[in-house]
Amino acid sequence: MNTLLLKDVVLDGKVTDILIEKSKISRIGSGIEAPGAKIIHGAGRLAALIPFYNTHTHTAMTLLRGYADDLALFTWLNEHIWPAEAKMDAHDIYAGTRLGILEMIKSGCCFFNEMYWFPHEAIRAAGEMGVRADIGLVHLALPGSTTARSAAQIREDALALAKELPPGVRIALAPHAIYTVCESALRDVTAVAEELQMPLHIHCSETLREVEDCRREHNDLTPVAYLDSVGLLKENTLLAHCVHLTDEDRKIIAGRGAVISHCPVSNMKLCSGTFDLQAALGAGCRVTIGTDGASSNNNLSMVEEMKFAALAAKLKTNDPTAGKDEDVFRCATLNGAAYARVNAGFFEGADADILLVELNHCRMVGDYNLTANLVYSADSSVMHTLICNGRVIMEDHHVPGEEEIIADARRCCDKFRR
Amino acid sequence: MNTLLLKDVVLDGKVTDILIEKSKISRIGSGIEAPGAKIIHGAGRLAALIPFYNTHTHTAMTLLRGYADDLALFTWLNEHIWPAEAKMDAHDIYAGTRLGILEMIKSGCCFFNEMYWFPHEAIRAAGEMGVRADIGLVHLALPGSTTARSAAQIREDALALAKELPPGVRIALAPHAIYTVCESALRDVTAVAEELQMPLHIHCSETLREVEDCRREHNDLTPVAYLDSVGLLKENTLLAHCVHLTDEDRKIIAGRGAVISHCPVSNMKLCSGTFDLQAALGAGCRVTIGTDGASSNNNLSMVEEMKFAALAAKLKTNDPTAGKDEDVFRCATLNGAAYARVNAGFFEGADADILLVELNHCRMVGDYNLTANLVYSADSSVMHTLICNGRVIMEDHHVPGEEEIIADARRCCDKFRR
Repeated sequence: MNTLLLKDVVLDGKVTDILIEKSKISRIGSGIEAPGAKIIHGAGRLAALIPFYNTHTHTAMTLLRGYADDLALFTWLNEHIWPAEAKMDAHDIYAGTRLGILEMIKSGCCFFNEMYWFPHEAIRAAGEMGVRADIGLVHLALPGSTTARSAAQIREDALALAKELPPGVRIALAPHAIYTVCESALRDVTAVAEELQMPLHIHCSETLREVEDCRREHNDLTPVAYLDSVGLLKENTLLAHCVHLTDEDRKIIAGRGAVISHCPVSNMKLCSGTFDLQAALGAGCRVTIGTDGASSNNNLSMVEEMKFAALAAKLKTNDPTAGKDEDVFRCATLNGAAYARVNAGFFEGADADILLVELNHCRMVGDYNLTANLVYSADSSVMHTLICNGRVIMEDHHVPGEEEIIADARRCCDKFRR
Repeated sequence: MNTLLLKDVVLDGKVTDILIEKSKISRIGSGIEAPGAKIIHGAGRLAALIPFYNTHTHTAMTLLRGYADDLALFTWLNEHIWPAEAKMDAHDIYAGTRLGILEMIKSGCCFFNEMYWFPHEAIRAAGEMGVRADIGLVHLALPGSTTARSAAQIREDALALAKELPPGVRIALAPHAIYTVCESALRDVTAVAEELQMPLHIHCSETLREVEDCRREHNDLTPVAYLDSVGLLKENTLLAHCVHLTDEDRKIIAGRGAVISHCPVSNMKLCSGTFDLQAALGAGCRVTIGTDGASSNNNLSMVEEMKFAALAAKLKTNDPTAGKDEDVFRCATLNGAAYARVNAGFFEGADADILLVELNHCRMVGDYNLTANLVYSADSSVMHTLICNGRVIMEDHHVPGEEEIIADARRCCDKFRR
């Protein structure tokens, strides 16, 4: 990895230089010289920030963007999404994942936590484009299901995938949900994750129906209590959605150090309910933000997701002081980075994940509060340059290969047209 | 106005040419030749659409973007917004309005319905930048208030402003709200609007408190019924917000042909409540969309506002089929154009307001449904070129003078810093 020098960028309101060597920030200060380094000039008009970390998505669903909207959940799934997904082959997943990564990079995001099919294709796409990713090995295992795998098979699949991973890419184990994975399979997956020290990624308490079914089937346990009873809740576990939590659920999640991925747009679009951000933060839960897939959003923009998170929190509590910009911004950046095991920030030795944002932009004036401007005003057009793991993956709004990525994805859409 | 030829743009899924002469669409078809015309090449990758019409805003509040957020309503107004507004002079309004117009153009919007101070400065800004606008003559008139004006004075002020208006700019009369304008003044303003054939623009039923106070003070009339009783509800009347409506209110509004400006972001951010889009559309109300001012939003993006409108409608009704993309898109485009008295669309003789949108863009693939992509996926980065009243006001993402406009606005912000 080459040396990279950010000249005259704005950090905490002051103009400074940032030197990056071997994927880490090695120096911050004025007048840094680094002969031979690649230089990016901030000219006092690019702010340096921690990028976004998208903790729950199904990236290749970009191929189904706008394919079926404004429908009741089961019509949407049964008549549109599942039949289309059944046609997806490995190349579709590669193409759709590249398209989604392109979109995430363009909106300032350097990490995604993936739960979808053909994980080796997602690994390839992430590696080529230089983003970080946790690629989930999806597990569906209802009794009698043909996709059920033994603990030994899961272990074998996970180890096979984990061979020769690109930098910044990890394998996660992704049991889909409590209503698609039976208890013994959940225990198997948990044991393998423990042994291989891999993260776990599962949908949890997304809909009221899931909660009601769980209580009926599992001795009145909530989905959170049930997952805890099988040992799945740990610091390395990501629970997607968590819309319907009890106070006791929040205590359990906080106590285990498990991580919530709050997906406000998807929850609102599918009428799943509204996550209580204030209650989760108040209980000490580790809250991060995810976009979910493009067919229930319909984009992968973490900057837009922050605004929905802030406003949904106010609506939920009828309190305009809920969902504060700085809280939401921390969820989308630092908290996500912590989940991704990235030592993000601006200090010597920090992992060099850095987003440069245009300050000379109509959405960024008034310029009293950069966090408020990012959460409430910005969109992807303010995202200038993105550095992930010390590598420049977008420079001056341009991502290498973007025209070809878009063209390839569009070709893949042809097979889904009706 | 020069002749303009749009070559190979995508209209309703087909590639065609569009000829614009004297501010109107004069021909649509393949292979149009127009020697001497300015040509914009769509190359089969720019879609031609009706632009957005922002029917409620306070544009120069861009100067207070990010100035005070996440506060209770009265703290926000009394301690932050009103003291800052008291410092605004004519140049601030000019600079802040230009900044807001720049932002609106960049996100595909060609009209704004303005309610703010120093209307002559807003007129100047709109004229210079080539957008359409209704500039409101704001009226505050509680008994004993120093800002109260007689009917004769209102008439005189309106006629003075209406002299030498730039193309596409009209004067509206803008009594602020029922709680800041007394009944006799509402009647005066209504009479002047009737005589001068000017539109009316008023906040209406924004908060529960407004409704409760109105019922107490006006013989149990709702704000809508009260405004109707003073004769203010007409086809040329715009009611901003309308969050708290009864079935009877909706019938009155629909019956009078008055127009609603739905401002979902502001309503959510300030916890005003949630407008019932489905009920309003079902009652036959003319619904349009507005961004409100930047200090309660904090941007002026109609494309973002559409997504909030669609999702808020679903949340309000707990029905994912509510707030359909095509309904919301019509509110933001055609319905807004109708309010602005623009004969918008793609036919010979139509007013030439045209937005060109990038199709070769990561947010626009899958490409099954352009409307869904615009409502749920797009942001300002897809907006390529904007034509208003036959004039190109943004071309290939560039608005003339934008760097100077941003620099001027930023200088104005200095006086508000604390």
